[in-house]
Amino acid sequence: MNKVRIGVIGAGRIGKIHTEHLLSMPEVQVKYLADLYIDQMTDWTKNLGIPHLTKNYRDMLADSEIDAVLICSHTNTHTEIITAAAEANKHIFCEKPISFDLAHTLKALKTVEQHGIQLQVGFMRRFDHNFRRVYECVKEGKIGTPHIVKITSRDPEYSSKEYIKTSGGMPFDMTIHDYDMARFLTNSEVEEVYVQGAVLIDEVFAECGDIDTAVTTLRFQNGAIGVIDNSRKAAYGYDQRVEVFGSKGSVAVENDFDNTATISTAEGIYRDKPKYFFLERYHEAFRTEIQSFIQSILDQQKVFVDGNDGLQAELIAHAAHRSLNDRRPVTIREIKEEYA
Amino acid sequence: MNKVRIGVIGAGRIGKIHTEHLLSMPEVQVKYLADLYIDQMTDWTKNLGIPHLTKNYRDMLADSEIDAVLICSHTNTHTEIITAAAEANKHIFCEKPISFDLAHTLKALKTVEQHGIQLQVGFMRRFDHNFRRVYECVKEGKIGTPHIVKITSRDPEYSSKEYIKTSGGMPFDMTIHDYDMARFLTNSEVEEVYVQGAVLIDEVFAECGDIDTAVTTLRFQNGAIGVIDNSRKAAYGYDQRVEVFGSKGSVAVENDFDNTATISTAEGIYRDKPKYFFLERYHEAFRTEIQSFIQSILDQQKVFVDGNDGLQAELIAHAAHRSLNDRRPVTIREIKEEYA
Amino acid sequence: MNKVRIGVIGAGRIGKIHTEHLLSMPEVQVKYLADLYIDQMTDWTKNLGIPHLTKNYRDMLADSEIDAVLICSHTNTHTEIITAAAEANKHIFCEKPISFDLAHTLKALKTVEQHGIQLQVGFMRRFDHNFRRVYECVKEGKIGTPHIVKITSRDPEYSSKEYIKTSGGMPFDMTIHDYDMARFLTNSEVEEVYVQGAVLIDEVFAECGDIDTAVTTLRFQNGAIGVIDNSRKAAYGYDQRVEVFGSKGSVAVENDFDNTATISTAEGIYRDKPKYFFLERYHEAFRTEIQSFIQSILDQQKVFVDGNDGLQAELIAHAAHRSLNDRRPVTIREIKEEYA
Amino acid sequence: MNKVRIGVIGAGRIGKIHTEHLLSMPEVQVKYLADLYIDQMTDWTKNLGIPHLTKNYRDMLADSEIDAVLICSHTNTHTEIITAAAEANKHIFCEKPISFDLAHTLKALKTVEQHGIQLQVGFMRRFDHNFRRVYECVKEGKIGTPHIVKITSRDPEYSSKEYIKTSGGMPFDMTIHDYDMARFLTNSEVEEVYVQGAVLIDEVFAECGDIDTAVTTLRFQNGAIGVIDNSRKAAYGYDQRVEVFGSKGSVAVENDFDNTATISTAEGIYRDKPKYFFLERYHEAFRTEIQSFIQSILDQQKVFVDGNDGLQAELIAHAAHRSLNDRRPVTIREIKEEYA
Repeated sequence: MNKVRIGVIGAGRIGKIHTEHLLSMPEVQVKYLADLYIDQMTDWTKNLGIPHLTKNYRDMLADSEIDAVLICSHTNTHTEIITAAAEANKHIFCEKPISFDLAHTLKALKTVEQHGIQLQVGFMRRFDHNFRRVYECVKEGKIGTPHIVKITSRDPEYSSKEYIKTSGGMPFDMTIHDYDMARFLTNSEVEEVYVQGAVLIDEVFAECGDIDTAVTTLRFQNGAIGVIDNSRKAAYGYDQRVEVFGSKGSVAVENDFDNTATISTAEGIYRDKPKYFFLERYHEAFRTEIQSFIQSILDQQKVFVDGNDGLQAELIAHAAHRSLNDRRPVTIREIKEEYA
Repeated sequence: MNKVRIGVIGAGRIGKIHTEHLLSMPEVQVKYLADLYIDQMTDWTKNLGIPHLTKNYRDMLADSEIDAVLICSHTNTHTEIITAAAEANKHIFCEKPISFDLAHTLKALKTVEQHGIQLQVGFMRRFDHNFRRVYECVKEGKIGTPHIVKITSRDPEYSSKEYIKTSGGMPFDMTIHDYDMARFLTNSEVEEVYVQGAVLIDEVFAECGDIDTAVTTLRFQNGAIGVIDNSRKAAYGYDQRVEVFGSKGSVAVENDFDNTATISTAEGIYRDKPKYFFLERYHEAFRTEIQSFIQSILDQQKVFVDGNDGLQAELIAHAAHRSLNDRRPVTIREIKEEYA
Repeated sequence: MNKVRIGVIGAGRIGKIHTEHLLSMPEVQVKYLADLYIDQMTDWTKNLGIPHLTKNYRDMLADSEIDAVLICSHTNTHTEIITAAAEANKHIFCEKPISFDLAHTLKALKTVEQHGIQLQVGFMRRFDHNFRRVYECVKEGKIGTPHIVKITSRDPEYSSKEYIKTSGGMPFDMTIHDYDMARFLTNSEVEEVYVQGAVLIDEVFAECGDIDTAVTTLRFQNGAIGVIDNSRKAAYGYDQRVEVFGSKGSVAVENDFDNTATISTAEGIYRDKPKYFFLERYHEAFRTEIQSFIQSILDQQKVFVDGNDGLQAELIAHAAHRSLNDRRPVTIREIKEEYA
Repeated sequence: MNKVRIGVIGAGRIGKIHTEHLLSMPEVQVKYLADLYIDQMTDWTKNLGIPHLTKNYRDMLADSEIDAVLICSHTNTHTEIITAAAEANKHIFCEKPISFDLAHTLKALKTVEQHGIQLQVGFMRRFDHNFRRVYECVKEGKIGTPHIVKITSRDPEYSSKEYIKTSGGMPFDMTIHDYDMARFLTNSEVEEVYVQGAVLIDEVFAECGDIDTAVTTLRFQNGAIGVIDNSRKAAYGYDQRVEVFGSKGSVAVENDFDNTATISTAEGIYRDKPKYFFLERYHEAFRTEIQSFIQSILDQQKVFVDGNDGLQAELIAHAAHRSLNDRRPVTIREIKEEYA
């Protein structure tokens, strides 16, 4: 395989980012870009040099030259497109979550498996320079056996009521990244989830049946305990930190900053806030995850984040959702058995 | 009142520390030191200049000159001594926990109340320079309304099996300090506790019916959520950190170090480990808590950490104990109602 | 002006970096690339899509469509090319230093002035995110009037004897960046230089009439004092720090790191070394300086680092060179008067 | 020797500190306290329990029980008292500097040598926890051979005009501590000094023939280069940092802080200023230096900072003074030869 020929489905914020990264990679040709509103995007599309701009993603599935597709459309379209793409034998990169409905996710993954194609899920944080370093430390045994994994994940700002309503709720929209990170760093599966959630920031979350603040406890199969703290609004900016504590020590990563300046005056010691939000913080990670996907296709190697990773995070999200409703710890087994 | 006249009960490790601090305070006279094994302590006692060394703490209670006593004996003697001291109208400083038995604690506190004397409980961490700064920040509204309080509390080493057996278990022996800190920093009472605990370090804990690793989630009356992570053995030393996150930002304290040196070589950037254990880390706090107690007596002001603070921490410890056994969230109300 | 049409002269390490950045900028067309050894660079050049690859830089000067040239060839060719480009009315970006010979530099700058074209000198560190933040702090008066500026600038490794021989010596090859930084941050001209230099790392520097370790003191016209410490070999990597201390406080920047991970074990607290060398550390700055140059041409605005900046740094380098030889403080006036 | 019997001469700020430390040491008896104004100090002296309070320091020299004296009086009385104490065979702790007059210093040290008594000079910074750690790192070879030593030493505030006039000027009053630190950390003698000084803070310094801002370059016998930056007024507090850079790496110490709290808000990341001034910062070091002196007497071991250390720092101060006046580098040899 000389060049990987790609079609992108969905040209919203994240679709645009992936497209621009793909266009700058010499080993890639972006042949199709599909979006229902593609006609209204001429400002952005006119100089991209993508041969086929279309409203219908099935055009690219019908093209035998296409090797892989990126699914960046709304979550409720994911499994339908995954199924169609798998049936057309295209490799798939799909944004997270695969779906809000476990039955749909399981069915889509089955089709993927039957056609022997690759599916990578968009947990780009695994490619972040900081979290990657934690992962390596744990893997190399630097901190021994993991006992406690702590994840802080706080957004600087929340979206509109319209978005919140359709977001799937904090577990699916926000914490799902942290579930994946917890699995990634401990290299173990979650057995039980307990969520202590609250609406402390804005009543709009209560109105949408959602929460804005949460502490989630996880029990892993290998005995480790995980804890995630989330907030929809950190006044000082995006807060993304991780610590893994184990039998031989701990490894921790702090936030990223735009500069290292400290200003010392009569008022105290000051430094600028961390990088503002996920586009700034995970700028490199977004690029690296797509490069990794392309490289997996070129090398015919397994992708770094696969369909099962997507599935496991969704199982945890469902358990978290139930834990919030029932105010009790919920096992993954309980969720799984309902779909067996 | 010119000088405060004090008797110390119990001359173990912590009793010795308090005694030496008291002896260096010009506004204090240490008139009695009581310990069952006082005869075997001549190396230490001979140059102290304490007038009365005795095996029987009741000697000091009978002395009308004595203003206050420090109770540093075993936990199972605390409530008996508190009751006797209160009846003798002595102010009391008592090490934590007041007792392992809520009924005893409640009864002792009632006697204290009836005699209108002061009782301070030995939560010395409230006097630590770092935690005190966090407390002030929260109180001054620097971080707005608290939403999440996070406490990391890990020991560098654990004690012998003999000690573990009689320690009361992690909630009473170790986490009780963190329960108090959580209440102190949020200025709110705990409503519900959930503990995810495990034996990951040494089977000796399982043999003693105890755990060595835990993540505890707390729900507060004011809506805030707390999380405490504990380990009996951090390879890098004593780990005592806190963060309070609120509507306007967060305040966090890191560990204390013996020096600020960083060594940069071809192998990387290195710094020394944090201060080794509680005697080093809380060296100043131990002194400050006793000074605060003495000052409260001199000024006839309320002590900074009172009997109710001791009681509340014990209520949480009982709920935590039950949460561990029953693997479910337990409310403080549930515990309280059994003792109503 | 719609697009800026550029020719690049010299395709060594730095010429390649600039060329690749230019090729990714939509507002630029790279029309020429000139290098004496262009024929041997087919691996790199074949996919670039540059219309004219040539051994003779005068080809691009003869092309009336060319707006600007980048001079990335050897230092001893700079002034000849600057003169020719200015006479052809091309804007110029020239790598530092302009030359080792003040008379040549002065003559070239005169030609630039006569033709009214722009000349930017390659002090890319001015575009570094950290130093830029220091500059802004000083400019905004955050630290009041600058009193002391401190620059640490240490390389992780030194070059071959062949390179050292023709490098012009530490003042011209290495410290010249720091002279510029000192002027940039204080916004003042240097009056006097004193260099304490030594050969402590490798005798090869003594054999080449050069030094490997130096502390340079600067006196500025506004009264501020500067100090630069240089080493050819820091075992832990590239060390690039700055502090400006003034009447209201100080601002300092630390090194950049690839990640924020700290690893705590029984051996101590460890973090990875800083970014390895200038290509990693100034990766973004190299891009930003060229973008700034292009933007200045498009906007017909003055460049951010001009010919006089190049000249002043060279004057300081000459004074430093003499200070080393004569072991005495040397004024800039003394150097200037010899060329008046 | 069972207890060391001590007399203290001079009960100003520093004399009081030393006295209180001595009084708390079980191995010491403070038998005399001499001060010309002792009659006016009854508030402080009444509860100390020192047997002899006197206006005449010769009382203690005449007492054969006295083992050692602390000289904490004005600098211009030091050499007279040293001489008298040495002749009375008392060990001596003397505050820095020994004197402003090299001839006097040399003569006093000769008398000390002739009587074979110990003389420790009050460079308490050698006992600071941070600088001590740097010293150990260098000594253990962790950073290889020292190439560059950098000292930042800035005061938060300056004294009255009356004090400045009699202070001996910045080299003798302030930088002398840094000269000693530079010698201590490099374990080498200074060969040459160059000072770039200025009056940038307050014209009062010019009026007193003094400076308020300085950068001092040192050349050491072992080839290393030192640089010290001083300011009389750092808006953010006392600034005491050191870095030693060598063939294998570097070791650096930052300031001490009262707490480790960082406060993150919409305005940025904030932490409190460093410890305010030398009494806070060197609180422990003042105690440790006296303990070290007492221990040296008890063990009949050489003191850690001796008369030659005092002398060498004064030689450097004289060279620095001349460098400022003559605006040229001055060698220590030049100063020495004038007193040979």
